[in-house]
Amino acid sequence: MSYTAPTKDMMFVIQELAGLTDIATLPGFGDATPETVEAVLEEAARFHGQVLAPLNAAGDRAPSRWEDGQVRTTAGFRDAFRQFGEGGWQGIVHPTEFGGQGLPKLVATPCIEMMNAANMSFGLCPLLTDGAIEALLTAGSDTLKQRYLPRLIAGEWTGTMNLTEPQAGSDLSLVRSRAVPQADGSYKVSGTKIFITYGEHDMAENIVHLVLARTPDAPEGVKGISLFLVPKFLVNDDGSLGARNDVECVSIEHKLGIKASPTAVLQFGDNGGATGYLIGELHRGLEYMFVMMNAARFGVGVQGIAISDRAYQQAVAYAKDRVQSRPVDGSAQEAVPIIRHPDVRRMLTEMRALTEGARALALVAAGYADIAHGAADAQTRASYAAAYEYLVPIIKGWSTEMSVEVTSLGVQVHGGMGFIEETGAAQHYRDARILPIYEGTTAIQANDLVGRKTVRDGGAAARALLAQIDDTLAALAERGADPACRAMYGRLSAAHTALGNAVDFIVATARTDPNAVFGVSVAYLKLAGIVLTGWQMARALVVATDRRDEDPDFYGAKVATAAFFANHILVRAPGLEAAITCAAGTDGYLAISDAQF
Amino acid sequence: MSYTAPTKDMMFVIQELAGLTDIATLPGFGDATPETVEAVLEEAARFHGQVLAPLNAAGDRAPSRWEDGQVRTTAGFRDAFRQFGEGGWQGIVHPTEFGGQGLPKLVATPCIEMMNAANMSFGLCPLLTDGAIEALLTAGSDTLKQRYLPRLIAGEWTGTMNLTEPQAGSDLSLVRSRAVPQADGSYKVSGTKIFITYGEHDMAENIVHLVLARTPDAPEGVKGISLFLVPKFLVNDDGSLGARNDVECVSIEHKLGIKASPTAVLQFGDNGGATGYLIGELHRGLEYMFVMMNAARFGVGVQGIAISDRAYQQAVAYAKDRVQSRPVDGSAQEAVPIIRHPDVRRMLTEMRALTEGARALALVAAGYADIAHGAADAQTRASYAAAYEYLVPIIKGWSTEMSVEVTSLGVQVHGGMGFIEETGAAQHYRDARILPIYEGTTAIQANDLVGRKTVRDGGAAARALLAQIDDTLAALAERGADPACRAMYGRLSAAHTALGNAVDFIVATARTDPNAVFGVSVAYLKLAGIVLTGWQMARALVVATDRRDEDPDFYGAKVATAAFFANHILVRAPGLEAAITCAAGTDGYLAISDAQF
Repeated sequence: MSYTAPTKDMMFVIQELAGLTDIATLPGFGDATPETVEAVLEEAARFHGQVLAPLNAAGDRAPSRWEDGQVRTTAGFRDAFRQFGEGGWQGIVHPTEFGGQGLPKLVATPCIEMMNAANMSFGLCPLLTDGAIEALLTAGSDTLKQRYLPRLIAGEWTGTMNLTEPQAGSDLSLVRSRAVPQADGSYKVSGTKIFITYGEHDMAENIVHLVLARTPDAPEGVKGISLFLVPKFLVNDDGSLGARNDVECVSIEHKLGIKASPTAVLQFGDNGGATGYLIGELHRGLEYMFVMMNAARFGVGVQGIAISDRAYQQAVAYAKDRVQSRPVDGSAQEAVPIIRHPDVRRMLTEMRALTEGARALALVAAGYADIAHGAADAQTRASYAAAYEYLVPIIKGWSTEMSVEVTSLGVQVHGGMGFIEETGAAQHYRDARILPIYEGTTAIQANDLVGRKTVRDGGAAARALLAQIDDTLAALAERGADPACRAMYGRLSAAHTALGNAVDFIVATARTDPNAVFGVSVAYLKLAGIVLTGWQMARALVVATDRRDEDPDFYGAKVATAAFFANHILVRAPGLEAAITCAAGTDGYLAISDAQF
Repeated sequence: MSYTAPTKDMMFVIQELAGLTDIATLPGFGDATPETVEAVLEEAARFHGQVLAPLNAAGDRAPSRWEDGQVRTTAGFRDAFRQFGEGGWQGIVHPTEFGGQGLPKLVATPCIEMMNAANMSFGLCPLLTDGAIEALLTAGSDTLKQRYLPRLIAGEWTGTMNLTEPQAGSDLSLVRSRAVPQADGSYKVSGTKIFITYGEHDMAENIVHLVLARTPDAPEGVKGISLFLVPKFLVNDDGSLGARNDVECVSIEHKLGIKASPTAVLQFGDNGGATGYLIGELHRGLEYMFVMMNAARFGVGVQGIAISDRAYQQAVAYAKDRVQSRPVDGSAQEAVPIIRHPDVRRMLTEMRALTEGARALALVAAGYADIAHGAADAQTRASYAAAYEYLVPIIKGWSTEMSVEVTSLGVQVHGGMGFIEETGAAQHYRDARILPIYEGTTAIQANDLVGRKTVRDGGAAARALLAQIDDTLAALAERGADPACRAMYGRLSAAHTALGNAVDFIVATARTDPNAVFGVSVAYLKLAGIVLTGWQMARALVVATDRRDEDPDFYGAKVATAAFFANHILVRAPGLEAAITCAAGTDGYLAISDAQF
């Protein structure tokens, strides 16, 4: 159950599909040469494979434990996190000004995939810290930045996001936690927050909680929410740790998966109020939180890709090792490794095709984000930002939904052994199940995709991507003599039409019949996920077809995987289109009474 | 987390779709009037809902435990099993001659669904006992029948199926357990069997192991396997229990789900050989085992339906209770129960549509089995037997694959709470994951569907079912003024064409390109599952459309559910057809080397 990072596929995507050369021309990214990027990836592969991967099963068997308000993490996690920080991995994407490495998101993203493939329960701690760093960079005062960012970026302290309350899950307008201003400019924060990932642990000296709360005179609803920084230990002016703050971990959850990651219930202010500091301006908390959430949502999508690859690797190893039954084509008279059986091969290729497609889309999107931040031209920045924003809910929603499918296939490849916990396949299946839920469920992503990302701009961002697919179709048509390119051309054309029709339907119908549209919003997200990840596989196919002779093993596998994606996954697109575009009409399930369920 | 058996839907299917009136004309089934059947179902609903359902979560939290060769089941299971036996539930479908109730399979099947919905871990014990009973009825000598059947049917003793060995999973030709003939006509059995469900437990006085093994001079492969009965305790001539036999439980597995059901490693013959008795003739073990397997496969398909319904009920209850967010259509200014949100409704309806469709198909198939056994005319028996045999791998494969999808949706409806074990949704998700694996993985079912059930008769059984779908299409066409019937007509027509084309392709290609066909065998099984369960929903829709005014709540919900099935599930059929019929061509994934994975 080792993990070997797919650095070759990552480098292929980074260079051929995500345009590293262009990214390296952006200000501050001049060092991002292929050689340097490959060296970073190789070092990341070594660290995550050797240090984090071996702790993954241990974290499942000996989860974090709560005792008297303290959380003890799995043996080895604390030391691994120290090495993680010392290696500079927490700071990989963050500004050099605060001690980070300032690398492009395009380069950081594969490292984050590796971390999560090696150990997703561990990876959550840096992921949440990244979110806190992003929020501070966006809206924190200089004092807060100077005091907290260097320690967070160095991996000495960790961050959390405190949104959810028992009555306020997806609906943050229901948040009730309170923050009362004090004479010294600080606030006294009180309230109960649940589902706080790494809300308490023993891996770092301090924990920096970012907390949504209301001031006494705040308006109702989401417009009255502000964001506060509440450290576990107060920080003195010289940067040393001061008194323990009034925040306590009253329990952690007993979960289906990611058991090493403590999910805390935090009680703020039971002894007079936890000292907190306003981040940015009053009543703009939700806006800042969305900065964290968008970073975190992209990161969770990458977790989906990561755990899918880990499950794939484990399934391949088992399928090569397990000998069972003669081949159906009579090519051998004795039992063979099950990887020779067509359905096992189909399952492995399905796992791989879904994973590679999602990885390619995430890296392409990471490249868009880099350009959106760094391009000289405002128009370029805006159009790449729009494309990236459109893709975030798809990367989060699709990559996580597909990770449930892929890890389930991973169990299935193992047959009966897959159901035995010691095998390890079941852990991935359990761990993956949180991904379509946290940081906004798939429905929340789909609603974002429909509302903010499609209807608001009249479908412009979606159609800009569809226009790019036209270019890929033209490249496939030029290679029509090749059977894989020909197959892909046909499937991608149909899928392109399907997505275009779905966008038209949604733009036309969202305001007149919102129930119908939001009833098929997840179908739209899945359709977009299939089409856009399939598009990346098509782009990969074009390159691989041209270069096949240079590296027959790698490119030959890419061609086969892309052809599989075309014939087995892209073919789902017209069915989703049909489900979407007929929504306003015969769908009586929206109209029956609650009692009829 | 209570369970209320869906007796109304069951009675609807039994009467309107599965033809209870016809079944009641078969010999021995004269008592199966609607009133009697309803009374049986109501009693079953009461027993399983009150006695078994409350133990389901307990079984997950306090699983069976192994200690020194003994297995202690969850507190309450032993007493529940005693009540189960006393209530006559083990014998419901078995011959009155041996103490059973002799009811039609059509009537027994909903009871078995209820048992498994109430408590699937518990339900496995009776399920395996049913298999042992079937094998004894088929091939046991009169002595064995008289000695074992009454106690098994009374629920005093339980049965097991011992197929798998460490090196012999799906491939039974690799079985190595040995049986050496003794002077008194018995055998000394030795070997290691794994994954033996309820292979050891404390719920019954005796356990009757049916064991596949080879005699010393047996031929290699599956043709050298015989079936033996090996009791845990030997049975004296007067029926009393004798000495402990030489079979020991050396461990039980630590599993992803169904934790209350002990999965044993059994060691036979470590102290000279376990005494066993040949069932039927030498070397025909696999054939008898298939009798058990076919019964068990149908039963496992019913488990998939059962756990799906349990997950649905739990999700509905949560969705009615949990208040979160305002409705997207602006129909209320405050947060509403989440069942009002379109995507939650979509998820619940998808769970329900899949479950109702699969239930209808299983019950229709149960009726076929009854006619295949009891009809006066040999031609009728043969044609119903062929239809039933065709449906068994579909009911097993499809209902279990869909149960993974449905229980996953059940988790999703709960949001973050779904990932917390105390909620209970996660247990269904974990429990369901075994269903596409045991009693033959989905690939094994799909291979059976392709080889024995489609290619062998040149597609005749499949086409006979397709011809029946034509009748339903005609009935829908007559009701074309109704929007749901019109939608269903279009979707079912396309799905019918898709399945017909898939059958043609498989029959034409299986011998010339077996790898291509077995690479899409699971897609064929899923296509058949979608089309045939959708067909049952279409038949239900016809009845519901005509009777809507009589019972608007029930029939109105059925119309909405059927329309949903048409527009959201049947639409998947053409995509599966495309994946299947293009298989012989561009699918390079079958040809790349193992090393390229």
